[in-house]
This record gives sequence, structure tokens and C-alpha cells, in this order.
Amino acid sequence: MAEAGPAIVLVQPQLGENIGMCARAMLNCGLTELRLVAPRDGWPNPAAVSTCSGAHEVIERAKVFNTTAEAVADLQFVLATTARGRDMTKQIFAPDQAIAEIRRRSAAGGQKCGILFGPERTGLENDDIAMADGILNIPLNPAFSSLNLAQAVLLVAYSWYSVGEAAVQNLIREEELSPPAAKGDIENLLAHLEDELDQHRFFRSAEMRPTVLRNIRNMFTRMKMTAQDVNTMHGILSALTGKRSWK
Amino acid sequence: MAEAGPAIVLVQPQLGENIGMCARAMLNCGLTELRLVAPRDGWPNPAAVSTCSGAHEVIERAKVFNTTAEAVADLQFVLATTARGRDMTKQIFAPDQAIAEIRRRSAAGGQKCGILFGPERTGLENDDIAMADGILNIPLNPAFSSLNLAQAVLLVAYSWYSVGEAAVQNLIREEELSPPAAKGDIENLLAHLEDELDQHRFFRSAEMRPTVLRNIRNMFTRMKMTAQDVNTMHGILSALTGKRSWK
Repeated sequence: MAEAGPAIVLVQPQLGENIGMCARAMLNCGLTELRLVAPRDGWPNPAAVSTCSGAHEVIERAKVFNTTAEAVADLQFVLATTARGRDMTKQIFAPDQAIAEIRRRSAAGGQKCGILFGPERTGLENDDIAMADGILNIPLNPAFSSLNLAQAVLLVAYSWYSVGEAAVQNLIREEELSPPAAKGDIENLLAHLEDELDQHRFFRSAEMRPTVLRNIRNMFTRMKMTAQDVNTMHGILSALTGKRSWK
Repeated sequence: MAEAGPAIVLVQPQLGENIGMCARAMLNCGLTELRLVAPRDGWPNPAAVSTCSGAHEVIERAKVFNTTAEAVADLQFVLATTARGRDMTKQIFAPDQAIAEIRRRSAAGGQKCGILFGPERTGLENDDIAMADGILNIPLNPAFSSLNLAQAVLLVAYSWYSVGEAAVQNLIREEELSPPAAKGDIENLLAHLEDELDQHRFFRSAEMRPTVLRNIRNMFTRMKMTAQDVNTMHGILSALTGKRSWK
């Protein structure tokens, strides 16, 4: 990951298990900078290590602060994650907008950015939110919007990861795995099939024959057959008709 | 939620806790149809109730199946979630592409869609993936890509929720004119074919039989057969083998 992502700032997290799962979700998405404000059960916390599933580099490099103000002191742009808009005059960002803004600031201006997440039960307090430049709101089912802390971190981290160019990599195109059959080989297979269908009196009327044949051709075209697939189909036809080979 | 979303199909989930967290993530994003294939610890499972954080309507309406084939029998478009591309010739979708395709199919053609997720430790087996129309790949940090089951479900469900109806455009395609066959009808066709191939001694060795069958299944899945296509293929098989009808 060449570009540094935003710091993830957990304010007064309660359960070590959740901190570990946040670390895992962060590293899944290439984020490594975790900051903890007054974690309830102290730090380091063995429960966090056991749930981080190997994201040790995040856990080990986590920094602990006494107050939110200290945790964001070196940051230049901070967003506060809340479930509801709250009664504050601040710009509200959806995750993708928030990430676009953070990427713009870090790429263009080299700015240090961070995202605040509140305690599991209560969310961020207004004093914490007041320290932020804007509110990050994750749109969810209004009738059931309570997210687990690690899941909120995951959705934001995933936005960061997938908005960037990294999202494009790794998508192996199907053609690279096994090349498509040559059209001539597919024609040959269709001729084999047509021949057998004629011999077995498949077509009820000469009138319908062209239409039915076209439908069959369409089916086999959609199959996107590989060379190996064509051989398999020849084999199936030979087996079903009890012939060693065609022509 | 006016529009029905895709069914979430958990194949052999191990921990009830994870099933509960999946239900919560689903309802966060307005998805309510949960299907379970052979859950390891049986069903209902109290552990799932305690971790669903109030998403009872999802847990209570969950349906249990013995096999993946049964779980997808009434679906018309199925994606398999995998961490890696696997060595199969299937179209690969990023989450947003997958959701756009699912929204297009459900809005335009009223098609029933589903997304498969494998067991926590091992992921989906190749035989499950072979039943899918495509692969859903969540792009993540290649150096640390292992996602918790509920987090994988959350990312996919959140894509569904946040992509919204806006993505549904360009509606006229051939599937709307003739809807895709139900998976159960395709299974039935494959059983017909397999039966005839056995009778005609198509398989040279018992050892290779599962692999060859899987390749054949993949070919026919890629065909995107309509109900009419399935009838045509039954007719072809009956004609070639000189039988009036199957079973």
C-alpha cells in the first residue's frame, strides 16, 4: 500500500475483542494506523490479540491517548462517525464522499486525516464530534441501523480500499484461465449435433427446423466454450449415439 | 423495503454466533431472506439468537436445506463468494457489479437471485461454485484478505443497500423476454444427462467422473438456459438416445 490511509481513532472502546476485530478489518483494507482513546480495559489487551486474526502489525503499532483532543492533535482533517446526523451544523458525508475527500486531501496536500468511532454502546459524545471537520454517516436500514463497531470500521475501511486503484487489481479475466474455442471448432461441433439430430429425427417439421437450430446455436454460443469443452461435447454426442467418433 | 433483495445462502456455517451476526448485517442493509445449508450445530441455534442483536425476523424466517442444490433450486441467478478466482471459467463480479446485475435482474425480470457464502474455515467447495452463474470476488488487501463470515455478508449486503435502484438501467435484454430457468429444472436436466451418460458408459474411469461432471455442469451453467432451452435439451437427449421421454 503506497499511499497512507486515514488513522482510525477508536474513542473509549469497551471490549478488547472489538478492538482486535477492528484491526483485522483495517488490515483487510490496507489501513494500518490505529489510535485508541482511553480504552476501558487498558492496553495492551490480550483479547484484542486473539481476535485480530493475525493483524499484529496494526495491534502492535496502535497508539494510546488519554483524550480525543490528543489523539487528533497532529491530524489536519477529521471526520466523526455517527449513526444519526446529530443536531450540529457540520457537513455530512456518505462513506464514498468521505473517502473521496480524504483521498483528495492526502494525495494533493499531503494532509494527515483521521476518522473517529465512538464507544460500542453510546457512540461518540457531542464534545468529540465538535472536534471533527464533518460527520461521516453510514446510510443503513432506518428500522435497524445499529452496527457493531468492527463492522462500522469495516464499511469505512472498505470504502477507502475500493475507491482507490487497488480495487481494479486481481480480477482475473476468464479468458486468461482457459482460452475460448475457435469459432470453426464450435461450428464443427454444431454440425456434429445437427447431423445426429437429423439421423434421430429430432425435427418434427421442416418448417420449424431453422428456428429450432438457431435456438440451439444461441444456447451453445452463450456457453462460451473452451477447446476442452468442445472435445467434451463431441465425446458426449458420440457416447449417447453409440458411435466411436464423428465422420 | 419494497424491493426483495437476494437470498443470502450460508453453506455449512459452523458457528451459530456467526449466523446471528450475518442476520444482523443483513437486516442493517434491508435484506431478510436467509438460507442455511446443513448448519453444523443444527437449527434453531440459541447462539445465533443472542448475537443477532434483535434481527429476529431474519433468524425466525431462515430456511434450512440439506444440500446447496436444494437451497438454490428456485433461484434464477446465483453468485458464489470466493476469496480467490479459483480455476473455473466463470464471470467474476466485484461487489458493486454483482449488485448492479442482481438489481437489474430482480427489477426488470422479477428474477429470484441468491449469493452463496462458504463455511468459515474453508470457503465454498468447487462443487458448490459449479452451481453458480458467476463468482463474487471482494477485492481486499492481497497480503491479508481473510474476512470473517459476517463481515463478508455485510460488505455484500451494504453494496446492495447503497447501490440503490439508481443502478438499474438498460433494462431490455433477452432474459426479460424469456426468463431464465429455475435452478431445480437445470438440476433435473443435468440428472437426465448424467443418467444417459452412465447408461452409455461415457465415463472412462470412476476416478475422473466427478471432475468431468463438474466441467459439464459449469458448461451448462454458463449457457444461461431459459425454461424453453431446458425443454429443448431434454428433447435432444431423448432423440439421441432413442427414448420417448425421461423417467
